[in-house]
Amino acid sequence: MNWAISRRAQQLTSSAIREILKVTERPEVISFAGGLPSPATFPVAAMEQAVARIFADNPQAALQYAATEGYMPLREFIAKRHAVDVERVLITTGSQQALDLIAKVMIDPGSPVLVETPSYLGALQAFSLFEPEFVSVPGDDKSLLPESLTPELTAGARFLYALPNFQNPTGRRMPLERRQALVARARELGLLLVEDDPYGELSYSGDQLPSLLSMNPDGVIYMGSFSKILAPGLRLGFVIAPPELHFKLCQAKQASDLHTPSFTQRLAYEVVRDGLLDSHIPTIRTLYAAQCQAMLDSLARHMPEGVTWNAPEGGMFIWMELPEGLDSMEILQEAVNRNVAYVPGAPFYASNPRRNALRLAFVTVAPERIEQGVAILGTLFREAIAKHAPQAKAA
Amino acid sequence: MNWAISRRAQQLTSSAIREILKVTERPEVISFAGGLPSPATFPVAAMEQAVARIFADNPQAALQYAATEGYMPLREFIAKRHAVDVERVLITTGSQQALDLIAKVMIDPGSPVLVETPSYLGALQAFSLFEPEFVSVPGDDKSLLPESLTPELTAGARFLYALPNFQNPTGRRMPLERRQALVARARELGLLLVEDDPYGELSYSGDQLPSLLSMNPDGVIYMGSFSKILAPGLRLGFVIAPPELHFKLCQAKQASDLHTPSFTQRLAYEVVRDGLLDSHIPTIRTLYAAQCQAMLDSLARHMPEGVTWNAPEGGMFIWMELPEGLDSMEILQEAVNRNVAYVPGAPFYASNPRRNALRLAFVTVAPERIEQGVAILGTLFREAIAKHAPQAKAA
Repeated sequence: MNWAISRRAQQLTSSAIREILKVTERPEVISFAGGLPSPATFPVAAMEQAVARIFADNPQAALQYAATEGYMPLREFIAKRHAVDVERVLITTGSQQALDLIAKVMIDPGSPVLVETPSYLGALQAFSLFEPEFVSVPGDDKSLLPESLTPELTAGARFLYALPNFQNPTGRRMPLERRQALVARARELGLLLVEDDPYGELSYSGDQLPSLLSMNPDGVIYMGSFSKILAPGLRLGFVIAPPELHFKLCQAKQASDLHTPSFTQRLAYEVVRDGLLDSHIPTIRTLYAAQCQAMLDSLARHMPEGVTWNAPEGGMFIWMELPEGLDSMEILQEAVNRNVAYVPGAPFYASNPRRNALRLAFVTVAPERIEQGVAILGTLFREAIAKHAPQAKAA
Repeated sequence: MNWAISRRAQQLTSSAIREILKVTERPEVISFAGGLPSPATFPVAAMEQAVARIFADNPQAALQYAATEGYMPLREFIAKRHAVDVERVLITTGSQQALDLIAKVMIDPGSPVLVETPSYLGALQAFSLFEPEFVSVPGDDKSLLPESLTPELTAGARFLYALPNFQNPTGRRMPLERRQALVARARELGLLLVEDDPYGELSYSGDQLPSLLSMNPDGVIYMGSFSKILAPGLRLGFVIAPPELHFKLCQAKQASDLHTPSFTQRLAYEVVRDGLLDSHIPTIRTLYAAQCQAMLDSLARHMPEGVTWNAPEGGMFIWMELPEGLDSMEILQEAVNRNVAYVPGAPFYASNPRRNALRLAFVTVAPERIEQGVAILGTLFREAIAKHAPQAKAA
């Protein structure tokens, strides 16, 4: 039977990349593809104690239906951390759900939505279901360019979606003066900013730049997550929004899953309530800084001339560019044949993909395996460059 | 700032009922309004043991990102229980999310969607966000009427949404011959059936009628839930769908929240894996049957002539009708003033609401409080009938 499905579902197609990357679950594959945090950072002992407290105190409450907005003590914890009114905080089932809710509340078919170049793939997917017209905002190796936000480019835009901190996929961080310029520009233009910040706390040096939210709480929807600082399997994120949008997001949330599991919300709250994050986050930073350095060292040793990459100041990703004309998507199959995986850059672009770019994740792979995997990629890219060069000349 | 929001978000309005019912959280209010299962039925001890096993075995896996389709052992458990291929099973963040995913995948603005008269409010809300055109299917006190499904009524319908077992809000159960007729009719018409079954296991006598799914697995999307047989705070539901629709639902799920929390999925699996449900569900049935009987007894004692209600064979709800011309929504405010709450029937109708109907939930209120609350309602309805009668004559 061929059932009639929605237009939005028809455009959901099987991803070629996902098919290739399926094999990366084999233990022999060295995967720089996944966006997974390191399980070594999960505060398991603290969670075990937290669960014991839940069962000792009031397990029924942790197992019953609860308010759509989320568990009040957890909302208060978040509100305090971000210096906002608790009435603006909504707990979501991971920050992916915040993307879905924002899309539901803000996007009509054909609505212009501004995104960075490149942007987070999961956001492009979530928004796509609501059929916006994506507008790519020009950027450089640091961030989007605030001065590119002209009235023409932003006309009718429902919002600008940006990841200022250690962006997925590029790892780049928006400098302070760009943040200030962006917020000022958006205010002038009447442009809503959607700030996605899952990696903000993962600055290797510990220095943090002010959020867009802190610069203009009434003009920003801020999305945060416990996935990278506690554990992603809890699926706990949150969204901080101006009151009238908060209310709409709550209504959309109620229709979407009623509320985020009571049990995981209380678990997270019991873990963080007494200040665990203050001691825990620095251990993640230290680990990820070392992992990043290991990869940078390996890249310096093995990458052929013509390949470039950045040195992120935080987060989980390095962005690499192969020489123009090479296609990281085409090369991926051979990389996987040699038991190394990465994510090609093209799907992170809403338009005009740079096919020579790719994303490397480094936090879950042991340094000796990083060295091994990067060596294999170095050889592969060298071969690809050599193979490509004569064609380039012929062309 | 007045941000431009989506058309679907504009139609989300504050619910008058929700505002009135907010006060039902006060302990002095006897609430027959909530759809909450009784916390006395949560298998807390089994859950505590299950959590201990998770932490002893592989806590990192329970805390890491996981497959969109869900935790394989839990999917296998569900597949076995419903005698379907595991590849058809998708775990959802409560069965409310299944409604959202089905709407995403199946509904375009203006798509006809068939619903029962009345139907589950949460489904109407979830579907509404995708702007279908609801078509109400005629029914009686037993269920919808399969013979009413003519080619004219069902033309272009994306699906028919039905709750055959102890429906929310009416408590009614569709008889076997109606199920057979419905499935046969749907097959003839090429009509997809969406079967929502959160209460199927809550038959007081323990007898269960075959699911629509079991009669035609390729023509039915089946939604199930752990909310009423384990605990709703886990937010665990599932959807069983024909392969091509399962695949689309998984893609929509990935964009919606990546996956349901790994921790709660493993917790549920550890609780049910060794057969706990076989001994646990009968205890819920016994409790709910006694609660139902307590309410039926109180109703018989206190309700004035002209008020009618059904005697459900399972589930959590009794459906009541006041004499024609009375409006249960208008009376609600006075009921709440007297510290008793219920849910008016009107919002459960996609069209032509019966304003004299209302829903009574009986599973969380102690029998002596049921007696007290029903006595108050009896007095109130008697007064309302008396007040209404002269007007009726005058009209």
